Amino acid sequence: MIGEGERTQKPAVNRQVLLKAHPDDIPQAEHFELTEAPVPAPGEGQILVRNIYLSVEPAMRGWVSAVANYSEPVPIGGVMRSFAAGRVEASRHPDYRTGELVTGMFGWQDYAAVDVGTVQRKVTETDLPLSTSLGVLGLNGITAYFGLLEIGQPKAGETVVVSTAAGAVGSCVGQIAKIKGCRTVGIAGGPEKARMCGEEFGYDAAIDYKQGGLAAACPEGVDVYYDNTAGPISDAVYAQLRVGARVVIRGTASVASWDPLPLGPRVERHLLVKRARMQGLLIFDFAARYGEARAALADWVRSGKIRYREDILDGIEHAPGAIAGLYRGENLGKRLIRIAAEA
Amino acid sequence: MIGEGERTQKPAVNRQVLLKAHPDDIPQAEHFELTEAPVPAPGEGQILVRNIYLSVEPAMRGWVSAVANYSEPVPIGGVMRSFAAGRVEASRHPDYRTGELVTGMFGWQDYAAVDVGTVQRKVTETDLPLSTSLGVLGLNGITAYFGLLEIGQPKAGETVVVSTAAGAVGSCVGQIAKIKGCRTVGIAGGPEKARMCGEEFGYDAAIDYKQGGLAAACPEGVDVYYDNTAGPISDAVYAQLRVGARVVIRGTASVASWDPLPLGPRVERHLLVKRARMQGLLIFDFAARYGEARAALADWVRSGKIRYREDILDGIEHAPGAIAGLYRGENLGKRLIRIAAEA
Repeated sequence: MIGEGERTQKPAVNRQVLLKAHPDDIPQAEHFELTEAPVPAPGEGQILVRNIYLSVEPAMRGWVSAVANYSEPVPIGGVMRSFAAGRVEASRHPDYRTGELVTGMFGWQDYAAVDVGTVQRKVTETDLPLSTSLGVLGLNGITAYFGLLEIGQPKAGETVVVSTAAGAVGSCVGQIAKIKGCRTVGIAGGPEKARMCGEEFGYDAAIDYKQGGLAAACPEGVDVYYDNTAGPISDAVYAQLRVGARVVIRGTASVASWDPLPLGPRVERHLLVKRARMQGLLIFDFAARYGEARAALADWVRSGKIRYREDILDGIEHAPGAIAGLYRGENLGKRLIRIAAEA
Repeated sequence: MIGEGERTQKPAVNRQVLLKAHPDDIPQAEHFELTEAPVPAPGEGQILVRNIYLSVEPAMRGWVSAVANYSEPVPIGGVMRSFAAGRVEASRHPDYRTGELVTGMFGWQDYAAVDVGTVQRKVTETDLPLSTSLGVLGLNGITAYFGLLEIGQPKAGETVVVSTAAGAVGSCVGQIAKIKGCRTVGIAGGPEKARMCGEEFGYDAAIDYKQGGLAAACPEGVDVYYDNTAGPISDAVYAQLRVGARVVIRGTASVASWDPLPLGPRVERHLLVKRARMQGLLIFDFAARYGEARAALADWVRSGKIRYREDILDGIEHAPGAIAGLYRGENLGKRLIRIAAEA
């Protein structure tokens, strides 16, 4: 119990970001509302998590849409759904102890009293920053890992092309491909990100998609294309596919709306002539194998074979506008909101 | 030796269909020329084949195009390239005996003196009509077999949709899918072919693509789509794909030209949301396994599990106009030209 007027590190309240309206398009700051509520008490079998990092990701656009897609829409007036990483503050469950670090769907708020089914995992890589649990060791890294290795199936010596190559997923894809002995070509938005591809993430070649140059960067064609964009960027890559190429459809960031379906050059002839394959990836299909990916990624991070960037905003007041910023491309690396000190 | 003026069943000459001009579009009768040449004598190590059936197939459009695609263009003045089935008339090779039946790239002509490397195989299913060696036991059946089973990977209980469902390949796909315990839905051009799908080839449902109705015919969605058309027919199927669906891209018959690439609704979102796969098929990639497919197909034909249609034109004079007829859709079943008696 905290006495009245007593100074404490704990906020006296639970700051929460609520959804105020379902946006038709990209969610903006005005679609959210920052409010305060009492810190909840964990019920029997629950834990109280003190969130330290909140995740910000493109998929949130879908979560707040009134149109159901992968998941139920976040309700109006509900706490914004979000992955988060934090510390167990109080436990009424035998498997969890105060002080343990956990990740899960804890929402954009300081505190979450949750059933332990909400916990994704205990964070055991305590030698690495907790922030990595939401980025390179979180779904970004895992998405890079399974999408590239299971769907892309790269072989040493092949050419692997990645769109949004400097992004949180793309940068990891490029580095894993390099570890597997491939030649890596990154496609990024703008000269600064193209420069990062080469200097920070070790791509053998990188192009700014606004400048073109893909064919010159892939003189032998493209064996694996890890696609985060769709649209004209992909159209240019499809024209360079080699016989037996594999295209991993992981995201469609460059397409503003899929209703109605936008038109583009038909792909069937490329696939037929090149006996190529396109396949969509939803990472949840690999949920049973996340541990395998995380262990490999953690080792590569420790040995310096995988580098990562994070874009950390300090303070929960940055959360409401943070998704729109992603879509403007203002972040370099995985975007997180830090709302408490790590240790 | 045949005495002068003596009556004989053998033509005194070798009738040949030569390519007269490279068509820009679909080859018409006027692009070919029927001529006569002496019957060739086999050289050392060669055989002389008396052709009985000549094949007519959509791929010939590519073979006579001036633009290289899978294969070198047929030269102007050259005998039209074609699969054919015939009898060994004379042999100067120890592995071949007079009277044996063979298939191979023998061209649109009565006689071919060829190196034995030109022979595709000896026809050993002598209990079945020789014509089947170019149809249901030839590349049509084999293309159906590997495209469906290896790329489509159907499982019992799944819904398999086939375009050009009454065609030589499509009808075989539908029946193999049925043998594997799938629900089969055929898309055909016109009410007559839709009727054939149900009555002759055992599809569970069939639609005339001009009438629509795919969604109603696939109330649980589409698990496997074996596509011979591309274009708007495929666009309608893509909208019905189920999670984990597989699309076999085997042909693009409905698309008149791929230069420039025609526009259509983008497919990436379908693939992503449904974690679906599209993959091109070139049957030559399975060349080492043709025997396996042929043995299975022959057994299914013998047991009546696979029925087939053939569209046989009598006389080599029908060859020049026969490709254009295919593209007009006038044939029901595999189109062949019979130029000699089978037995």
